[in-house]
Amino acid sequence: MPEQLTLYLHKVSTHSQKVEMALLEANAPYKGYQVDLFNKPEWFTSKVNPVGKVPAVAYGGPDVDPEDPSPLSAKIIESNVILEFVADLYPDSGLLPKDPVLRANVRFFIDAITKHVQEPVYAFLQGLESYENVLKGIEFIQGLLDEGREFAIGDHYTIADACIIPHIAKLKIVTETDIGKFPVGMGYKLGEELKGPKFAKFMKYVERMLERPSFKQTHDEESVITVFKRLFAGRVQ
Amino acid sequence: MPEQLTLYLHKVSTHSQKVEMALLEANAPYKGYQVDLFNKPEWFTSKVNPVGKVPAVAYGGPDVDPEDPSPLSAKIIESNVILEFVADLYPDSGLLPKDPVLRANVRFFIDAITKHVQEPVYAFLQGLESYENVLKGIEFIQGLLDEGREFAIGDHYTIADACIIPHIAKLKIVTETDIGKFPVGMGYKLGEELKGPKFAKFMKYVERMLERPSFKQTHDEESVITVFKRLFAGRVQ
Repeated sequence: MPEQLTLYLHKVSTHSQKVEMALLEANAPYKGYQVDLFNKPEWFTSKVNPVGKVPAVAYGGPDVDPEDPSPLSAKIIESNVILEFVADLYPDSGLLPKDPVLRANVRFFIDAITKHVQEPVYAFLQGLESYENVLKGIEFIQGLLDEGREFAIGDHYTIADACIIPHIAKLKIVTETDIGKFPVGMGYKLGEELKGPKFAKFMKYVERMLERPSFKQTHDEESVITVFKRLFAGRVQ
Repeated sequence: MPEQLTLYLHKVSTHSQKVEMALLEANAPYKGYQVDLFNKPEWFTSKVNPVGKVPAVAYGGPDVDPEDPSPLSAKIIESNVILEFVADLYPDSGLLPKDPVLRANVRFFIDAITKHVQEPVYAFLQGLESYENVLKGIEFIQGLLDEGREFAIGDHYTIADACIIPHIAKLKIVTETDIGKFPVGMGYKLGEELKGPKFAKFMKYVERMLERPSFKQTHDEESVITVFKRLFAGRVQ
Protein backbone atom coordinates (compact mmCIF):
# COMPACT_ATOMS: atom_id res chain seq x y z
CA MET A 1 0.00 0.00 0.00
CA PRO A 2 1.67 3.23 -1.13
CA GLU A 3 2.31 5.96 1.44
CA GLN A 4 1.26 9.61 1.32
CA LEU A 5 2.19 11.40 -1.89
CA THR A 6 2.28 15.17 -2.29
CA LEU A 7 2.67 16.52 -5.81
CA TYR A 8 4.10 20.01 -6.09
CA LEU A 9 2.93 21.38 -9.41
CA HIS A 10 1.91 24.41 -11.40
CA LYS A 11 -1.28 24.48 -13.43
CA VAL A 12 0.43 25.55 -16.65
CA SER A 13 3.49 23.29 -16.29
CA THR A 14 3.54 20.64 -19.01
CA HIS A 15 5.72 18.35 -16.94
CA SER A 16 3.47 18.71 -13.88
CA GLN A 17 0.47 17.77 -15.97
CA LYS A 18 2.20 14.60 -17.20
CA VAL A 19 2.62 13.40 -13.61
CA GLU A 20 -0.83 14.44 -12.44
CA MET A 21 -2.47 12.66 -15.37
CA ALA A 22 -0.56 9.47 -14.53
CA LEU A 23 -1.70 9.70 -10.89
CA LEU A 24 -5.32 10.17 -11.98
CA GLU A 25 -5.15 7.31 -14.47
CA ALA A 26 -3.80 5.07 -11.68
CA ASN A 27 -6.57 6.22 -9.31
CA ALA A 28 -3.78 7.12 -6.93
CA PRO A 29 -4.58 9.21 -3.85
CA TYR A 30 -2.39 12.32 -3.78
CA LYS A 31 -2.31 15.85 -2.49
CA GLY A 32 -1.71 18.44 -5.22
CA TYR A 33 -0.09 21.72 -4.20
CA GLN A 34 0.27 24.67 -6.58
CA VAL A 35 3.69 26.31 -6.27
CA ASP A 36 3.72 30.00 -7.16
CA LEU A 37 6.54 29.88 -9.71
CA PHE A 38 6.54 33.64 -10.17
CA ASN A 39 7.04 34.18 -6.47
CA LYS A 40 8.66 30.97 -5.28
CA PRO A 41 8.38 30.24 -1.56
CA GLU A 42 11.70 29.77 0.20
CA TRP A 43 10.65 26.47 1.81
CA PHE A 44 10.18 24.94 -1.64
CA THR A 45 13.83 25.24 -2.67
CA SER A 46 15.19 24.57 0.81
CA LYS A 47 12.98 21.57 1.61
CA VAL A 48 11.65 20.06 -1.61
CA ASN A 49 13.63 20.80 -4.76
CA PRO A 50 16.91 22.77 -4.58
CA VAL A 51 16.61 23.73 -8.26
CA GLY A 52 13.12 25.08 -7.61
CA LYS A 53 11.33 23.29 -10.43
CA VAL A 54 7.97 21.54 -10.56
CA PRO A 55 6.87 18.82 -10.63
CA ALA A 56 8.36 17.47 -7.44
CA VAL A 57 7.01 14.73 -5.21
CA ALA A 58 7.27 14.27 -1.46
CA TYR A 59 6.59 10.61 -0.75
CA GLY A 60 6.13 8.87 2.58
CA GLY A 61 6.82 10.27 6.03
CA PRO A 62 4.07 11.89 8.12
CA ASP A 63 0.98 13.44 6.56
CA VAL A 64 1.95 17.11 6.85
CA ASP A 65 0.93 20.49 5.46
CA PRO A 66 2.53 20.70 1.97
CA GLU A 67 3.96 24.10 2.96
CA ASP A 68 5.88 22.45 5.78
CA PRO A 69 7.41 19.37 4.12
CA SER A 70 8.81 16.72 6.40
CA PRO A 71 12.50 15.76 6.22
CA LEU A 72 11.23 12.19 6.57
CA SER A 73 9.61 12.08 3.14
CA ALA A 74 11.59 11.09 0.03
CA LYS A 75 11.80 13.95 -2.46
CA ILE A 76 11.60 12.85 -6.08
CA ILE A 77 12.21 15.20 -8.99
CA GLU A 78 12.46 15.07 -12.82
CA SER A 79 9.08 14.39 -14.39
CA ASN A 80 10.03 11.23 -16.30
CA VAL A 81 11.60 9.78 -13.16
CA ILE A 82 8.35 10.55 -11.32
CA LEU A 83 6.29 8.90 -14.07
CA GLU A 84 8.28 5.68 -13.62
CA PHE A 85 7.91 6.06 -9.86
CA VAL A 86 4.10 6.26 -10.10
CA ALA A 87 4.11 3.21 -12.39
CA ASP A 88 6.26 1.36 -9.82
CA LEU A 89 3.95 2.34 -6.95
CA TYR A 90 0.94 1.05 -8.91
CA PRO A 91 2.21 -2.00 -10.82
CA ASP A 92 -1.35 -3.13 -11.57
CA SER A 93 -2.43 0.23 -12.99
CA GLY A 94 -1.15 -0.68 -16.45
CA LEU A 95 0.84 2.57 -16.52
CA LEU A 96 3.69 0.30 -17.54
CA PRO A 97 2.92 -3.05 -19.20
CA LYS A 98 4.25 -6.23 -17.56
CA ASP A 99 6.02 -7.45 -20.69
CA PRO A 100 9.68 -6.29 -20.86
CA VAL A 101 9.55 -5.62 -24.62
CA LEU A 102 6.41 -3.48 -24.29
CA ARG A 103 7.98 -1.65 -21.36
CA ALA A 104 10.99 -0.92 -23.57
CA ASN A 105 8.61 0.37 -26.26
CA VAL A 106 7.00 2.73 -23.73
CA ARG A 107 10.42 4.02 -22.70
CA PHE A 108 11.58 4.43 -26.28
CA PHE A 109 8.39 6.42 -26.96
CA ILE A 110 9.08 8.67 -23.95
CA ASP A 111 12.68 9.20 -25.04
CA ALA A 112 11.40 10.10 -28.52
CA ILE A 113 9.00 12.68 -27.06
CA THR A 114 11.91 14.60 -25.55
CA LYS A 115 13.93 14.56 -28.76
CA HIS A 116 11.22 14.76 -31.41
CA VAL A 117 8.47 16.80 -29.74
CA GLN A 118 9.64 18.72 -26.70
CA GLU A 119 12.86 20.12 -28.17
CA PRO A 120 11.52 21.18 -31.62
CA VAL A 121 8.30 22.60 -30.13
CA TYR A 122 10.33 24.67 -27.69
CA ALA A 123 12.65 25.89 -30.46
CA PHE A 124 9.64 26.86 -32.59
CA LEU A 125 7.88 28.68 -29.74
CA GLN A 126 11.05 30.59 -28.95
CA GLY A 127 11.35 31.64 -32.58
CA LEU A 128 14.67 29.80 -32.92
CA GLU A 129 13.57 27.34 -35.59
CA SER A 130 10.77 27.00 -38.14
CA TYR A 131 8.09 24.42 -37.46
CA GLU A 132 9.61 21.95 -39.93
CA ASN A 133 11.25 19.97 -37.14
CA VAL A 134 7.94 19.92 -35.24
CA LEU A 135 6.30 18.28 -38.26
CA LYS A 136 9.19 15.85 -38.70
CA GLY A 137 9.03 14.98 -35.01
CA ILE A 138 5.29 14.34 -35.10
CA GLU A 139 5.78 12.19 -38.18
CA PHE A 140 8.35 10.15 -36.26
CA ILE A 141 6.01 9.72 -33.29
CA GLN A 142 3.13 8.85 -35.60
CA GLY A 143 5.27 6.05 -37.00
CA LEU A 144 5.40 4.52 -33.53
CA LEU A 145 1.59 4.35 -33.28
CA ASP A 146 -0.17 1.27 -34.54
CA GLU A 147 -3.18 1.86 -36.79
CA GLY A 148 -6.48 1.51 -34.99
CA ARG A 149 -4.98 1.22 -31.54
CA GLU A 150 -6.39 3.42 -28.83
CA PHE A 151 -3.22 4.07 -26.87
CA ALA A 152 0.37 4.88 -27.76
CA ILE A 153 1.75 1.45 -26.79
CA GLY A 154 -0.16 -1.76 -26.12
CA ASP A 155 -3.77 -2.07 -25.03
CA HIS A 156 -3.76 0.21 -22.05
CA TYR A 157 -3.10 3.81 -21.06
CA THR A 158 0.59 4.08 -20.15
CA ILE A 159 3.04 6.74 -19.05
CA ALA A 160 3.82 7.17 -22.78
CA ASP A 161 0.33 8.66 -23.23
CA ALA A 162 0.67 10.77 -20.09
CA CYS A 163 4.02 12.03 -21.32
CA ILE A 164 3.04 13.20 -24.78
CA ILE A 165 -0.43 14.68 -24.38
CA PRO A 166 0.43 17.78 -22.33
CA HIS A 167 3.00 18.76 -24.98
CA ILE A 168 0.48 18.35 -27.78
CA ALA A 169 -2.24 20.22 -25.85
CA LYS A 170 0.12 23.21 -25.55
CA LEU A 171 0.98 22.99 -29.22
CA LYS A 172 -2.74 22.93 -30.06
CA ILE A 173 -3.25 26.17 -28.14
CA VAL A 174 -0.38 27.72 -30.09
CA THR A 175 -1.96 26.70 -33.41
CA GLU A 176 -5.29 28.20 -32.31
CA THR A 177 -4.00 31.48 -30.84
CA ASP A 178 -0.76 32.08 -32.77
CA ILE A 179 0.96 32.98 -29.49
CA GLY A 180 4.74 32.43 -29.64
CA LYS A 181 7.98 34.12 -30.65
CA PHE A 182 7.73 32.80 -34.23
CA PRO A 183 6.75 35.19 -37.05
CA VAL A 184 3.04 36.20 -37.03
CA GLY A 185 0.78 33.60 -38.60
CA MET A 186 3.17 30.65 -38.29
CA GLY A 187 1.21 29.16 -35.39
CA TYR A 188 -1.98 29.15 -37.47
CA LYS A 189 -0.08 27.79 -40.45
CA LEU A 190 1.30 24.90 -38.42
CA GLY A 191 -2.27 24.15 -37.33
CA GLU A 192 -3.36 23.92 -40.97
CA GLU A 193 -0.50 21.55 -41.79
CA LEU A 194 -1.46 19.27 -38.92
CA LYS A 195 -5.03 19.03 -40.26
CA GLY A 196 -3.72 17.44 -43.48
CA PRO A 197 -4.14 13.72 -44.26
CA LYS A 198 -0.45 13.11 -43.56
CA PHE A 199 -1.01 13.52 -39.83
CA ALA A 200 -4.50 11.98 -39.60
CA LYS A 201 -3.44 8.95 -37.57
CA PHE A 202 -1.62 11.06 -35.03
CA MET A 203 -4.41 13.64 -34.74
CA LYS A 204 -7.04 10.94 -34.19
CA TYR A 205 -4.92 9.51 -31.40
CA VAL A 206 -4.60 12.98 -29.85
CA GLU A 207 -8.35 13.64 -30.10
CA ARG A 208 -9.09 10.43 -28.18
CA MET A 209 -6.58 11.33 -25.50
CA LEU A 210 -7.94 14.88 -25.09
CA GLU A 211 -11.33 13.39 -24.23
CA ARG A 212 -10.02 11.58 -21.19
CA PRO A 213 -11.05 12.87 -17.75
CA SER A 214 -7.40 12.78 -16.62
CA PHE A 215 -6.62 15.38 -19.26
CA LYS A 216 -9.69 17.56 -18.83
CA GLN A 217 -9.29 17.66 -15.08
CA THR A 218 -5.69 18.88 -15.31
CA HIS A 219 -5.96 21.24 -18.28
CA ASP A 220 -6.50 24.95 -17.66
CA GLU A 221 -6.51 26.55 -21.08
CA GLU A 222 -7.20 30.06 -19.88
CA SER A 223 -4.22 30.06 -17.52
CA VAL A 224 -1.95 28.63 -20.22
CA ILE A 225 -2.94 31.44 -22.58
CA THR A 226 -2.36 34.08 -19.89
CA VAL A 227 1.10 32.73 -19.06
CA PHE A 228 2.06 32.22 -22.72
CA LYS A 229 1.09 35.83 -23.47
CA ARG A 230 3.35 36.94 -20.66
CA LEU A 231 6.24 34.65 -21.65
CA PHE A 232 6.12 35.54 -25.33
CA ALA A 233 5.36 39.23 -24.96
CA GLY A 234 8.58 40.28 -26.69
CA ARG A 235 7.83 38.49 -29.91
CA VAL A 236 9.46 39.50 -33.18
CA GLN A 237 6.68 40.74 -35.47
CA MET B 1 13.23 -17.47 -18.64
CA PRO B 2 14.52 -14.75 -20.98
CA GLU B 3 14.83 -15.55 -24.68
CA GLN B 4 17.87 -15.17 -26.94
CA LEU B 5 19.51 -11.76 -26.79
CA THR B 6 21.94 -10.42 -29.36
CA LEU B 7 23.80 -7.23 -28.51
CA TYR B 8 25.10 -5.22 -31.45
CA LEU B 9 27.96 -3.15 -30.15
CA HIS B 10 31.28 -1.53 -30.87
CA LYS B 11 34.27 -2.01 -28.63
CA VAL B 12 34.94 1.72 -28.19
CA SER B 13 31.27 2.76 -27.85
CA THR B 14 30.58 4.13 -24.37
CA HIS B 15 26.89 3.36 -24.67
CA SER B 16 27.55 -0.20 -25.84
CA GLN B 17 29.81 -0.78 -22.86
CA LYS B 18 27.08 0.38 -20.46
CA VAL B 19 24.74 -2.31 -21.76
CA GLU B 20 27.34 -5.06 -21.94
CA MET B 21 28.44 -4.37 -18.37
CA ALA B 22 24.82 -4.64 -17.20
CA LEU B 23 24.43 -7.97 -19.00
CA LEU B 24 27.62 -9.31 -17.42
CA GLU B 25 26.62 -8.10 -13.95
CA ALA B 26 23.28 -9.91 -14.36
CA ASN B 27 25.05 -13.08 -15.55
CA ALA B 28 22.82 -12.87 -18.59
CA PRO B 29 23.55 -15.09 -21.58
CA TYR B 30 23.95 -12.97 -24.73
CA LYS B 31 25.63 -12.96 -28.08
CA GLY B 32 27.81 -9.89 -28.66
CA TYR B 33 28.36 -8.78 -32.25
CA GLN B 34 30.82 -6.04 -33.22
CA VAL B 35 29.36 -3.71 -35.83
CA ASP B 36 31.98 -2.06 -38.05
CA LEU B 37 30.86 1.54 -37.56
CA PHE B 38 33.38 2.88 -40.05
CA ASN B 39 32.02 0.58 -42.73
CA LYS B 40 28.49 -0.13 -41.63
CA PRO B 41 26.85 -3.22 -43.13
CA GLU B 42 23.61 -2.59 -45.00
CA TRP B 43 21.70 -5.28 -43.08
CA PHE B 44 22.32 -3.43 -39.82
CA THR B 45 20.36 -0.31 -40.78
CA SER B 46 17.72 -2.20 -42.76
CA LYS B 47 17.10 -4.96 -40.21
CA VAL B 48 18.25 -3.80 -36.78
CA ASN B 49 18.49 -0.05 -36.26
CA PRO B 50 17.38 2.37 -39.00
CA VAL B 51 19.54 5.14 -37.51
CA GLY B 52 22.55 2.83 -37.61
CA LYS B 53 23.72 3.32 -34.04
CA VAL B 54 24.98 0.88 -31.45
CA PRO B 55 24.08 -0.45 -29.00
CA ALA B 56 21.04 -2.24 -30.35
CA VAL B 57 19.46 -5.42 -29.11
CA ALA B 58 17.62 -8.16 -30.99
CA TYR B 59 15.57 -10.07 -28.45
CA GLY B 60 13.57 -13.25 -28.87
CA GLY B 61 12.71 -14.99 -32.11
CA PRO B 62 14.86 -17.82 -33.50
CA ASP B 63 18.53 -18.20 -32.64
CA VAL B 64 20.05 -16.86 -35.86
CA ASP B 65 23.37 -15.59 -37.20
CA PRO B 66 23.67 -11.96 -35.95
CA GLU B 67 24.44 -10.93 -39.54
CA ASP B 68 21.05 -12.23 -40.63
CA PRO B 69 18.67 -10.85 -37.97
CA SER B 70 15.20 -12.36 -37.83
CA PRO B 71 12.12 -10.17 -38.35
CA LEU B 72 10.64 -12.15 -35.45
CA SER B 73 12.96 -10.67 -32.83
CA ALA B 74 12.11 -7.40 -31.06
CA LYS B 75 14.65 -4.68 -31.85
CA ILE B 76 15.43 -2.43 -28.90
CA ILE B 77 17.53 0.71 -29.21
CA GLU B 78 18.66 3.66 -27.03
CA SER B 79 21.16 2.55 -24.41
CA ASN B 80 19.24 3.73 -21.35
CA VAL B 81 16.10 2.01 -22.63
CA ILE B 82 18.15 -1.18 -23.06
CA LEU B 83 19.56 -0.85 -19.52
CA GLU B 84 16.01 -0.79 -18.12
CA PHE B 85 15.13 -3.70 -20.41
CA VAL B 86 17.98 -5.82 -19.03
CA ALA B 87 16.91 -4.93 -15.48
CA ASP B 88 13.33 -5.97 -16.36
CA LEU B 89 14.47 -9.27 -17.87
CA TYR B 90 16.47 -10.02 -14.71
CA PRO B 91 14.40 -8.62 -11.84
CA ASP B 92 16.43 -10.58 -9.29
CA SER B 93 19.79 -9.34 -10.56
CA GLY B 94 19.60 -6.23 -8.39
CA LEU B 95 20.29 -4.08 -11.48
CA LEU B 96 17.26 -2.14 -10.26
CA PRO B 97 16.32 -2.27 -6.57
CA LYS B 98 12.84 -3.48 -5.62
CA ASP B 99 11.97 -0.38 -3.60
CA PRO B 100 10.23 2.32 -5.70
CA VAL B 101 12.11 5.20 -4.01
CA LEU B 102 15.50 3.56 -4.62
CA ARG B 103 14.47 2.84 -8.21
CA ALA B 104 13.67 6.53 -8.59
CA ASN B 105 17.09 7.36 -7.16
CA VAL B 106 18.76 5.11 -9.74
CA ARG B 107 16.81 6.82 -12.54
CA PHE B 108 17.59 10.29 -11.23
CA PHE B 109 21.27 9.31 -11.14
CA ILE B 110 21.10 8.11 -14.76
CA ASP B 111 19.34 11.31 -15.83
CA ALA B 112 22.05 13.31 -14.06
CA ILE B 113 24.79 11.40 -15.92
CA THR B 114 23.42 12.60 -19.26
CA LYS B 115 23.17 16.22 -18.14
CA HIS B 116 26.14 16.53 -15.80
CA VAL B 117 28.71 14.10 -17.24
CA GLN B 118 27.99 13.10 -20.81
CA GLU B 119 27.16 16.55 -22.18
CA PRO B 120 29.99 18.54 -20.51
CA VAL B 121 32.57 15.81 -21.23
CA TYR B 122 31.55 15.81 -24.89
CA ALA B 123 31.74 19.62 -25.06
CA PHE B 124 35.20 19.55 -23.47
CA LEU B 125 36.51 16.83 -25.79
CA GLN B 126 35.20 18.73 -28.80
CA GLY B 127 36.98 21.87 -27.61
CA LEU B 128 33.66 23.71 -27.27
CA GLU B 129 33.88 24.35 -23.53
CA SER B 130 36.55 24.40 -20.83
CA TYR B 131 36.55 21.56 -18.31
CA GLU B 132 34.86 23.69 -15.66
CA ASN B 133 31.47 22.12 -16.39
CA VAL B 134 33.02 18.66 -16.21
CA LEU B 135 34.25 19.43 -12.70
CA LYS B 136 30.89 20.92 -11.71
CA GLY B 137 29.13 17.88 -13.10
CA ILE B 138 31.34 15.45 -11.22
CA GLU B 139 30.78 17.47 -8.07
CA PHE B 140 27.03 17.12 -8.59
CA ILE B 141 27.29 13.36 -9.12
CA GLN B 142 29.61 13.05 -6.11
CA GLY B 143 26.88 14.70 -4.05
CA LEU B 144 24.57 11.82 -4.91
CA LEU B 145 27.02 9.22 -3.54
CA ASP B 146 26.79 8.23 0.09
CA GLU B 147 30.06 8.16 2.01
CA GLY B 148 31.45 4.67 2.45
CA ARG B 149 28.97 3.00 0.16
CA GLU B 150 30.33 0.68 -2.48
CA PHE B 151 27.81 1.40 -5.23
CA ALA B 152 26.16 4.51 -6.64
CA ILE B 153 22.72 3.76 -5.16
CA GLY B 154 21.79 1.26 -2.46
CA ASP B 155 23.68 -1.89 -1.55
CA HIS B 156 24.02 -3.49 -4.93
CA TYR B 157 25.44 -2.88 -8.38
CA THR B 158 22.72 -1.18 -10.44
CA ILE B 159 22.28 0.23 -13.92
CA ALA B 160 23.38 3.58 -12.41
CA ASP B 161 26.89 2.12 -11.97
CA ALA B 162 26.82 0.57 -15.45
CA CYS B 163 25.73 3.89 -16.89
CA ILE B 164 28.41 6.14 -15.42
CA ILE B 165 31.59 4.05 -15.48
CA PRO B 166 32.17 3.89 -19.26
CA HIS B 167 31.96 7.70 -19.40
CA ILE B 168 34.48 8.09 -16.61
CA ALA B 169 36.81 5.45 -18.07
CA LYS B 170 36.94 7.48 -21.31
CA LEU B 171 37.55 10.66 -19.35
CA LYS B 172 40.39 8.95 -17.49
CA ILE B 173 42.07 8.07 -20.80
CA VAL B 174 41.76 11.70 -21.86
CA THR B 175 43.43 12.89 -18.65
CA GLU B 176 46.25 10.39 -19.17
CA THR B 177 46.87 10.96 -22.89
CA ASP B 178 45.71 14.56 -23.41
CA ILE B 179 43.87 13.45 -26.58
CA GLY B 180 40.97 15.78 -27.46
CA LYS B 181 40.17 18.99 -29.31
CA PHE B 182 40.82 21.12 -26.21
CA PRO B 183 44.01 23.21 -26.01
CA VAL B 184 47.18 21.15 -25.40
CA GLY B 185 47.70 20.23 -21.76
CA MET B 186 44.11 20.71 -20.65
CA GLY B 187 43.48 16.97 -20.48
CA TYR B 188 46.45 16.50 -18.14
CA LYS B 189 45.37 19.54 -16.13
CA LEU B 190 41.87 18.15 -15.66
CA GLY B 191 43.49 14.92 -14.42
CA GLU B 192 45.44 16.88 -11.80
CA GLU B 193 42.28 18.65 -10.63
CA LEU B 194 40.48 15.33 -10.22
CA LYS B 195 43.28 14.05 -7.99
CA GLY B 196 42.56 16.81 -5.46
CA PRO B 197 40.83 16.18 -2.11
CA LYS B 198 37.64 17.80 -3.42
CA PHE B 199 36.91 14.79 -5.62
CA ALA B 200 38.29 12.06 -3.35
CA LYS B 201 34.91 10.44 -2.64
CA PHE B 202 34.05 10.24 -6.33
CA MET B 203 37.47 8.95 -7.37
CA LYS B 204 37.41 6.22 -4.73
CA TYR B 205 34.03 5.11 -6.04
CA VAL B 206 35.42 5.06 -9.59
CA GLU B 207 38.50 3.08 -8.56
CA ARG B 208 36.31 0.37 -7.02
CA MET B 209 34.16 0.18 -10.13
CA LEU B 210 37.16 -0.04 -12.48
CA GLU B 211 38.26 -3.18 -10.63
CA ARG B 212 35.12 -5.08 -11.52
CA PRO B 213 35.38 -7.92 -14.04
CA SER B 214 32.38 -6.50 -15.94
CA PHE B 215 34.43 -3.39 -16.65
CA LYS B 216 37.77 -5.07 -17.37
CA GLN B 217 36.18 -7.55 -19.73
CA THR B 218 34.54 -4.82 -21.82
CA HIS B 219 37.27 -2.18 -21.78
CA ASP B 220 39.73 -2.01 -24.66
CA GLU B 221 41.97 0.93 -23.88
CA GLU B 222 44.20 0.53 -26.90
CA SER B 223 41.27 0.64 -29.33
CA VAL B 224 39.79 3.68 -27.57
CA ILE B 225 43.08 5.54 -27.94
CA THR B 226 43.36 4.59 -31.62
CA VAL B 227 39.82 5.78 -32.37
CA PHE B 228 40.17 8.95 -30.26
CA LYS B 229 43.36 9.84 -32.12
CA ARG B 230 41.47 9.48 -35.37
CA LEU B 231 38.39 11.41 -34.17
CA PHE B 232 40.38 14.27 -32.68
CA ALA B 233 43.06 14.48 -35.35
CA GLY B 234 42.14 18.04 -36.31
CA ARG B 235 42.71 19.49 -32.89
CA VAL B 236 43.45 23.15 -32.36
CA GLN B 237 46.98 23.40 -30.98
